[in-house]
Amino acid sequence: MEIETPYLIFIGDAKDALAAKTGQGIVDWRPTWSLGQLRLENCRADLHIPDMTVAEAATAGAKTFVIGTVSPGGTLPESWIPVIVSALEAGLDIASGMHTRLREFPAVVAAAEKHGCKLYDVRHCDLQFGTGNGTARAGNRLLTVGTDCSVGKKYTALAIEREMRKRAMKVDFRATGQTGILIAGGGIAIDAVVADFIAGACEYLTPENSDDHWDIVEGQGSLFHPSFAGVSLGLLHGTQPNAFVVCHEPTRTTMRNVDTPIASVEDVIEQTTALGRLTNPVVRCVGIAVNTASLDDSQSATYLEGLQRRFELPVTDPMRRGVASIVDVLTR
Amino acid sequence: MEIETPYLIFIGDAKDALAAKTGQGIVDWRPTWSLGQLRLENCRADLHIPDMTVAEAATAGAKTFVIGTVSPGGTLPESWIPVIVSALEAGLDIASGMHTRLREFPAVVAAAEKHGCKLYDVRHCDLQFGTGNGTARAGNRLLTVGTDCSVGKKYTALAIEREMRKRAMKVDFRATGQTGILIAGGGIAIDAVVADFIAGACEYLTPENSDDHWDIVEGQGSLFHPSFAGVSLGLLHGTQPNAFVVCHEPTRTTMRNVDTPIASVEDVIEQTTALGRLTNPVVRCVGIAVNTASLDDSQSATYLEGLQRRFELPVTDPMRRGVASIVDVLTR
Repeated sequence: MEIETPYLIFIGDAKDALAAKTGQGIVDWRPTWSLGQLRLENCRADLHIPDMTVAEAATAGAKTFVIGTVSPGGTLPESWIPVIVSALEAGLDIASGMHTRLREFPAVVAAAEKHGCKLYDVRHCDLQFGTGNGTARAGNRLLTVGTDCSVGKKYTALAIEREMRKRAMKVDFRATGQTGILIAGGGIAIDAVVADFIAGACEYLTPENSDDHWDIVEGQGSLFHPSFAGVSLGLLHGTQPNAFVVCHEPTRTTMRNVDTPIASVEDVIEQTTALGRLTNPVVRCVGIAVNTASLDDSQSATYLEGLQRRFELPVTDPMRRGVASIVDVLTR
Repeated sequence: MEIETPYLIFIGDAKDALAAKTGQGIVDWRPTWSLGQLRLENCRADLHIPDMTVAEAATAGAKTFVIGTVSPGGTLPESWIPVIVSALEAGLDIASGMHTRLREFPAVVAAAEKHGCKLYDVRHCDLQFGTGNGTARAGNRLLTVGTDCSVGKKYTALAIEREMRKRAMKVDFRATGQTGILIAGGGIAIDAVVADFIAGACEYLTPENSDDHWDIVEGQGSLFHPSFAGVSLGLLHGTQPNAFVVCHEPTRTTMRNVDTPIASVEDVIEQTTALGRLTNPVVRCVGIAVNTASLDDSQSATYLEGLQRRFELPVTDPMRRGVASIVDVLTR
């Protein structure tokens, strides 16, 4: 899978900035690929890149129309089909991270065939995996875990990868979700794997490597999220991390899209360590990454310092303060 | 999915009793549904129910031809197609738990269409589920969990259902694997669901019910099995059990098909309670079901009594001693 760039990023009628996080992730980590955004009426998100029609984007050289928004359950609404077909008619490939496959829509398939365009359903993986075996393997792996979904696990992993590359360390970012795959150009959308093979797919994604190599794995969900904890646990067991970083958003009170109270950082550290030991007895927490975007500078500093006093670990907001303090722990 | 009964159970050319264990399970737990068996030449298994041809079974009122044997790799051999087609021609539906889908055989699809019969590939689930929501719901649910795979979770659940029916309690067995589905006439093969929807599928399988009703849910895998723990956790969160029973096999030292040491009953109780509280704060262990088939009577008694002293819970071997002691706890 090699998706052509640059992208026209479609964020539909995203109800808030969080709903457009796929598009935002691409803009943040691959700005040169992010030619323009296409928004429908009532869209409440803004990626702060030029608004473009399909025709304008095609003229400007866009190669792929990327669906950069999420919907509950990952279904692709019928109402988006006309704009997708118009992009195909303008010669653009389509890349989608929705559960619903582009190929399920006959109008999309017909337009792709007619105009010689490719359809990328990046959330789906047609590889056949085995079941996980839990056998120890060489190389180092760091997994980002969360007190909830959408708390910065992918950002933190990408920031750690960037910091390690800056230090000339051997490192690979391993994408496990649709946005990560669009940013990395590869990976496995782990939540779309058949349940029996979650751990096996993670073992495949993070294979044996040299003793000085790090795989930085994008986490998914939370061990405490009632919708997705099974995925999070399979990811933990399959990746066999030596190290994990807890990602947290301090203003949230309930988990995303459910009424469950948000988990505490303490509980996540304790549970991840206890469960992670099954496949890696030396697993340990090496830092806490807090998304303090909704706090001002002073509030953020106060919050981070408060957390720092409670844990003998680096505490940082990757966006505000970087992740050097976490990478320092790994190189000690 | 509601498979019509009674069944004609096809065990093909099963090389031994173990190869026909799906058929045997149906006979053991649903004797009144088990109208007859159909064996090919060289079959070395015997379910000890009447041998019938397809025509005899149809005349006697059979509604579904059930494939009650396993084959290497779960593939459906081409040599079975003629007998499957003849069953369709006699008006029977077909139910299969094989990995190969019935729909992959054009002759089977054509015969099913021509005769208006249904094809059930019970290992595959084509329903579209939502993600789990974790919201509390009325009714009672009991989940069987394990220190490993294949330790008697299905058998224990079925024994509890039978004991409850004997006491005229309101109860349903909820199947989560292919054999269980054929025994129950419905259910969801949870390990074949896409990872994102494990918990959601379990919520669908065990819906809201009256305050005096019990769903007895067949567990899968183990929270401590490195291949399948994600499935086990999604099942725990999605079913929101009030009660769980730990199933154990005392002579095993490592988990099935991997090198991981078998989990202790203590760890399973502690971890299931800790993780289960996320979606049901009152979850508790109500008993321990031990498969002591490999021990003699005296060894079995000694083992069960030893376990009994360690836990303030009913400890039983469902095969040898039934599960009345566990159901007693639920009715107190």
